[in-house]
Amino acid sequence: MKVCIINGPNINFTGIREKGVYGTKTFEEMSESIKKRCAEIGVEAEIFQSNYEGAIIDKLQQCYFDGIDGIVINPGAFTHYSYAVKDAISSVNIPTIEVHLSNIHKREEFRHKSVTASSCMGQMCGFGEDGYILAVMALKMSLNK
Amino acid sequence: MKVCIINGPNINFTGIREKGVYGTKTFEEMSESIKKRCAEIGVEAEIFQSNYEGAIIDKLQQCYFDGIDGIVINPGAFTHYSYAVKDAISSVNIPTIEVHLSNIHKREEFRHKSVTASSCMGQMCGFGEDGYILAVMALKMSLNK
Amino acid sequence: MKVCIINGPNINFTGIREKGVYGTKTFEEMSESIKKRCAEIGVEAEIFQSNYEGAIIDKLQQCYFDGIDGIVINPGAFTHYSYAVKDAISSVNIPTIEVHLSNIHKREEFRHKSVTASSCMGQMCGFGEDGYILAVMALKMSLNK
Amino acid sequence: MKVCIINGPNINFTGIREKGVYGTKTFEEMSESIKKRCAEIGVEAEIFQSNYEGAIIDKLQQCYFDGIDGIVINPGAFTHYSYAVKDAISSVNIPTIEVHLSNIHKREEFRHKSVTASSCMGQMCGFGEDGYILAVMALKMSLNK
Amino acid sequence: MKVCIINGPNINFTGIREKGVYGTKTFEEMSESIKKRCAEIGVEAEIFQSNYEGAIIDKLQQCYFDGIDGIVINPGAFTHYSYAVKDAISSVNIPTIEVHLSNIHKREEFRHKSVTASSCMGQMCGFGEDGYILAVMALKMSLNK
Amino acid sequence: MKVCIINGPNINFTGIREKGVYGTKTFEEMSESIKKRCAEIGVEAEIFQSNYEGAIIDKLQQCYFDGIDGIVINPGAFTHYSYAVKDAISSVNIPTIEVHLSNIHKREEFRHKSVTASSCMGQMCGFGEDGYILAVMALKMSLNK
Amino acid sequence: MKVCIINGPNINFTGIREKGVYGTKTFEEMSESIKKRCAEIGVEAEIFQSNYEGAIIDKLQQCYFDGIDGIVINPGAFTHYSYAVKDAISSVNIPTIEVHLSNIHKREEFRHKSVTASSCMGQMCGFGEDGYILAVMALKMSLNK
Amino acid sequence: MKVCIINGPNINFTGIREKGVYGTKTFEEMSESIKKRCAEIGVEAEIFQSNYEGAIIDKLQQCYFDGIDGIVINPGAFTHYSYAVKDAISSVNIPTIEVHLSNIHKREEFRHKSVTASSCMGQMCGFGEDGYILAVMALKMSLNK
Amino acid sequence: MKVCIINGPNINFTGIREKGVYGTKTFEEMSESIKKRCAEIGVEAEIFQSNYEGAIIDKLQQCYFDGIDGIVINPGAFTHYSYAVKDAISSVNIPTIEVHLSNIHKREEFRHKSVTASSCMGQMCGFGEDGYILAVMALKMSLNK
Amino acid sequence: MKVCIINGPNINFTGIREKGVYGTKTFEEMSESIKKRCAEIGVEAEIFQSNYEGAIIDKLQQCYFDGIDGIVINPGAFTHYSYAVKDAISSVNIPTIEVHLSNIHKREEFRHKSVTASSCMGQMCGFGEDGYILAVMALKMSLNK
Amino acid sequence: MKVCIINGPNINFTGIREKGVYGTKTFEEMSESIKKRCAEIGVEAEIFQSNYEGAIIDKLQQCYFDGIDGIVINPGAFTHYSYAVKDAISSVNIPTIEVHLSNIHKREEFRHKSVTASSCMGQMCGFGEDGYILAVMALKMSLNK
Amino acid sequence: MKVCIINGPNINFTGIREKGVYGTKTFEEMSESIKKRCAEIGVEAEIFQSNYEGAIIDKLQQCYFDGIDGIVINPGAFTHYSYAVKDAISSVNIPTIEVHLSNIHKREEFRHKSVTASSCMGQMCGFGEDGYILAVMALKMSLNK
Repeated sequence: MKVCIINGPNINFTGIREKGVYGTKTFEEMSESIKKRCAEIGVEAEIFQSNYEGAIIDKLQQCYFDGIDGIVINPGAFTHYSYAVKDAISSVNIPTIEVHLSNIHKREEFRHKSVTASSCMGQMCGFGEDGYILAVMALKMSLNK
Repeated sequence: MKVCIINGPNINFTGIREKGVYGTKTFEEMSESIKKRCAEIGVEAEIFQSNYEGAIIDKLQQCYFDGIDGIVINPGAFTHYSYAVKDAISSVNIPTIEVHLSNIHKREEFRHKSVTASSCMGQMCGFGEDGYILAVMALKMSLNK
Repeated sequence: MKVCIINGPNINFTGIREKGVYGTKTFEEMSESIKKRCAEIGVEAEIFQSNYEGAIIDKLQQCYFDGIDGIVINPGAFTHYSYAVKDAISSVNIPTIEVHLSNIHKREEFRHKSVTASSCMGQMCGFGEDGYILAVMALKMSLNK
Repeated sequence: MKVCIINGPNINFTGIREKGVYGTKTFEEMSESIKKRCAEIGVEAEIFQSNYEGAIIDKLQQCYFDGIDGIVINPGAFTHYSYAVKDAISSVNIPTIEVHLSNIHKREEFRHKSVTASSCMGQMCGFGEDGYILAVMALKMSLNK
Repeated sequence: MKVCIINGPNINFTGIREKGVYGTKTFEEMSESIKKRCAEIGVEAEIFQSNYEGAIIDKLQQCYFDGIDGIVINPGAFTHYSYAVKDAISSVNIPTIEVHLSNIHKREEFRHKSVTASSCMGQMCGFGEDGYILAVMALKMSLNK
Repeated sequence: MKVCIINGPNINFTGIREKGVYGTKTFEEMSESIKKRCAEIGVEAEIFQSNYEGAIIDKLQQCYFDGIDGIVINPGAFTHYSYAVKDAISSVNIPTIEVHLSNIHKREEFRHKSVTASSCMGQMCGFGEDGYILAVMALKMSLNK
Repeated sequence: MKVCIINGPNINFTGIREKGVYGTKTFEEMSESIKKRCAEIGVEAEIFQSNYEGAIIDKLQQCYFDGIDGIVINPGAFTHYSYAVKDAISSVNIPTIEVHLSNIHKREEFRHKSVTASSCMGQMCGFGEDGYILAVMALKMSLNK
Repeated sequence: MKVCIINGPNINFTGIREKGVYGTKTFEEMSESIKKRCAEIGVEAEIFQSNYEGAIIDKLQQCYFDGIDGIVINPGAFTHYSYAVKDAISSVNIPTIEVHLSNIHKREEFRHKSVTASSCMGQMCGFGEDGYILAVMALKMSLNK
Repeated sequence: MKVCIINGPNINFTGIREKGVYGTKTFEEMSESIKKRCAEIGVEAEIFQSNYEGAIIDKLQQCYFDGIDGIVINPGAFTHYSYAVKDAISSVNIPTIEVHLSNIHKREEFRHKSVTASSCMGQMCGFGEDGYILAVMALKMSLNK
Repeated sequence: MKVCIINGPNINFTGIREKGVYGTKTFEEMSESIKKRCAEIGVEAEIFQSNYEGAIIDKLQQCYFDGIDGIVINPGAFTHYSYAVKDAISSVNIPTIEVHLSNIHKREEFRHKSVTASSCMGQMCGFGEDGYILAVMALKMSLNK
Repeated sequence: MKVCIINGPNINFTGIREKGVYGTKTFEEMSESIKKRCAEIGVEAEIFQSNYEGAIIDKLQQCYFDGIDGIVINPGAFTHYSYAVKDAISSVNIPTIEVHLSNIHKREEFRHKSVTASSCMGQMCGFGEDGYILAVMALKMSLNK
Repeated sequence: MKVCIINGPNINFTGIREKGVYGTKTFEEMSESIKKRCAEIGVEAEIFQSNYEGAIIDKLQQCYFDGIDGIVINPGAFTHYSYAVKDAISSVNIPTIEVHLSNIHKREEFRHKSVTASSCMGQMCGFGEDGYILAVMALKMSLNK
């Protein structure tokens, strides 16, 4: 089983920026940890990050051609306004789960609304790094049914 | 590790009502399945359901006195207006995860907004019965840290 | 033919409270009158009232198990915010008609909006006690088709 | 007892248009049926339809001069914006009941709001042709008091 | 100097309807009085009324071809939604004053907003029949400059 | 192929009113030009205009009985509030294209919203007289498929 | 008959500021002209201006003690937010007419709303200096009844 | 003089929950203190608390039958959405004062709005336990008049 | 203990204006009564009133220099828009209680919102003259702790 | 005559994604067809697509330097939020027409609003591939004038 | 070159109030510092402060008569609602720059909106005392061009 | 001292586009001028521009690694919707000032709101090229403290 984990803008600054909110592990360390934990449950995980909306969409479309089984996406701030990312998720038609490191409902008003979630299978927030693993597990449970 | 899984109004009609949205397993069957899956990962799960807002609040307060380790709550329609349930979650100060069977972002506008989520550790939606298991796992991961 | 007439909070104070709006007949007198008028058109009517949202939902679910033919509901103030009652009406899947004693469109702004009506077959308001009888007739006409 | 049943724009296309919503009986057939059913309960019903807002208002004013006992009005789409029809209902000061064939609360957002209902004695929706008969009965019950 | 005084829907029921708001003089009496008072200040006034939006627009366009010097319009309920009447006032390009019998700011919320006033030279409300005379005087003062 | 081109209120004042927005050709000249250009591409075009909402609806219904192939409608200001015209377009079930002479998105806020467009096949704005021809071509392309 | 004409902030800069909107006559010249025109119709007019909200309220209260017959008020920008001026007009209980030099419905959105008009007998706008005279005439007509 | 002090959901967790906002005295200690302070000023106070909306309404109705002189109510989170509690306060027609421990205007946006206050004699917030005593005093002052 | 009682615009017209809302006692009589009742509980009360927003702010700042123990403020209509008064209350950092004679929640919509209350210790409304005494008592209770 | 046809995000997945909405022709097939049909009417069409907002803006600016005669743009989801694309259209000052494959007024609420259309000459929607041809024709008609 | 620096309500409490937000320098110290720094760059600065909206407007008008070259205004809380100050800035027609000590975009929602800025040449916020100097420099740069 | 001046989409078309708003100097000329003026006050300025949101974020992150002392950013249209740029400014934690060439408060409604300003030290608008220099000066003043 192959999943692609797509991260949006500024996620690569996790561990550098706003440590109170996101913890002190760097994005690279977190990526390694996620890959390893995925491997332990028999899932091959590719991790992608970009600050470009266009690159996120290109990657989603590439997943379609690569025959990826499931997608975990943390769209970062694109969550709140990128109808283009939303449309891309709909168009590739692969089971996709939206993940957020922090509980978006505890933060600024504008972060409460997701324009992308309605194109996904489900959404999770507030579990930090664990959220990625839980999302991969959710994909696994769902695909085994 | 002991968790309490609290379900709000009409969840007991799952499997009877709106099968297109929630599937055909009855609430009793789903409850048994959840308890068994929890036991397999070393978690003792109590499952509670009520159509009364007051009973949900009483149960949340009881968890405080019973020394429950974590709470999984599916507040049903209370999600969208019960500030009383929200306050109860805040006041008992036990790690709590909000779960919804369906992806609330794909349904009517009023279901997109949760007034309870900001009092929880995190939120999950769209994973059906699996959502309860994933939430219990999230509690486990979080408490082991 | 058996119908259940469900009344929400404060309806039991009709005839005591705000007589200018609701008239001087007490709830008990009105209930007796309704039952008698229903009997005259060959309908057995059970009348239920509670100030508890949970009890209203329990009753709606009970109707499902009792094989009731139709439901007339005056949700009182729950009309304007109880998505839980709305969901319960949808889930029991019995023809249901929403009734209001007064014309809700002539009163405060918040009373103009019904969150429950979209789960019902139809809605009536402004006919006082007659509204219950008209709703029972509407059920009869509809079921005879 | 004489009632005037006034129908707004496009109601004359019932049975032709959107049969899924309104059924297959034509407006003429429905009109005949309504008149007959009214006669059976001792009510003489005149049925009027126009696509012109001005003609609806003229007719309402004519009812005043004709000494009509009660009015049943299905304002069609005028329900949602015609403050002129609303004012006309107020000005003629004859007991008036607003009727809609379909349950307007189940349809598009803009159909949930009635600007005319607050000038009427009451409102009914969701009962198809039966709604007209129920409204006439409501007028009868109300006037006999 | 020739002015045309155009009245919208239900104004012809003044004196019949809602006497508390509009007084007991009938529309015909008021029209005679207005014409006479206009004549006293050297203005020939034509008075027009219709319940049809289209007839109001036709009349406004006719004023253009008749070379009318100024228009006084009481659009009645059209004030609040008829962008068609608004466009007609703009298109005929004759000095036009909007008049309301009652002070619209003291009445329901929806009557506070005029969509037609921005196409007029000015607006007056709250002066009953006198408003028409004052508007004619305003036209006179303005045209003499 | 027969199309009916329906024009709403004030369109007959094109060339007279607001020449900066709509140009100096009169409505009659424009109508002649449109008919001629339609004939050149093998389309018989009837052109209708009225300031009456009711007449627009009557005409739309007449198209249904006349077996018209397609409709081009410029609803003028009715675009922004006439749910009655919207319902009429839906009910006649003939391919209909909404056209506006000016680019409504460059004008006042209230002109940005069309309540009629969702009942049409498509919408065009900003092309002046050409818009009518382009709409007829669009109908042709669409019907030839 | 004695009237007090009260002017709010910046009206004293009329003729200096924004001449395109208000004309080139200075406030002093306009005041003289108004007084003279009032005298010609038998009205003694006092003219007051202040940039202080408090001074406007003090003056309104003074009118009460001075036995003024009627008040004409141009509240300037206070029109749009000063609930204090609104309350003062209500409290002194003297017939008051609100006047604006320009047609406020043709200007910025925030100028369309008057919080003070609902405490007045009526409102006028768009007539420049003439508005003051027309308002005085309206008071006269109203008091002679 | 007998007053009933009614507390809504979660108030029984005062002293346990969010001590920064509500202080460290438990609800039982506070209740004892309130009763004692009331007795000192000659008022017999009954204190009631429930997490059930229905129980609050039942208690309000019971006050009516018990001939209670005045009611002090802290509706907790019901303040912000329970139109049912609001209607109950109106219907029992006993002088009622709404009290909040904290200053609701300093907290989250949703706590600024009270749907119940308009059915009460008055409202107080921000005085902690003292608020109950001040409310009882206010009832006393009001009833002695 | 010294308190300063500050009254905003039009409060000095209490007893003159709108007697239905505020009673018939004049502001001077009420002021004398308040001072006397304060003295009875050992509090020296200074009473200040102005129709000038600036004077209210100056007075609040003066309280800071005079070492006043507590402030009771009835900002009148400034309650609803004066962010300047709000800032002044925050800046002087003296315990301040907001008081309103009437229950603002029973009046016009705009009176429901207070922009000043969030800078105060607490708020009271609906108790007429008694409100001032209750507020002084609240200050006393709070300062004695 | 040279036109540039610019397509925004996900348009390249037409024929792959949501075939119910957009048909089964792939973007490449559609592009070839458009070029050929343009050539038939003497227009050289370049077709560009990118998922990057920045690339769309770069291309628009390049059109300025390349002396392109007209632009047809289908901004995809950028239509609804990209003020940057809007500004780019304004800045290059080349006649531009906005095109949408589907009728955006029949889809989700957020698709009804275009932030880019006000910078264009006109807008078209609902004509599928034909829309591009009609837009090119509109440019041709407009430029020949 | 002469500039007038006008400060609105509560600015004179800078250094006393909310030191976390505004620093500990008193208004008098800050004023001296500003004057000295202005003198160093060849600008004569007059500094004015008032808690009265009317006094701010009077001062702005006085600048007009005094031939002041430029104005720097910190309207304090008036920024958010005083359309009277806004009109005054427009009417005196002197280059004016709006300055705020703190970054208003980081504070409460209501402070994000300025009703005065659109009448100014430009706006600056977030630079404390330096903001005044930067604004004077901006005036200098602008006037030297 | 090293500062990085970052410009968002379409700023490179300054001098080409909308000269009435932005002047006739090209972006290259303005950039040279800014660098020179910065050098004169001892500041080394790097100037960056991109139409890509992702490139702006990459550049902001690069500033972090390059040890830049301060950032001046003109986000262009991204100001109004790019929460991604906002997050990037927050995450790099370098003093940043937002600059706009024109006074955004004088332009379209959507330009009044900045989503990025709350992550910056301060904001300036309306000073054209001078704004960049003033922002650099502000950084200098701030860093020297």
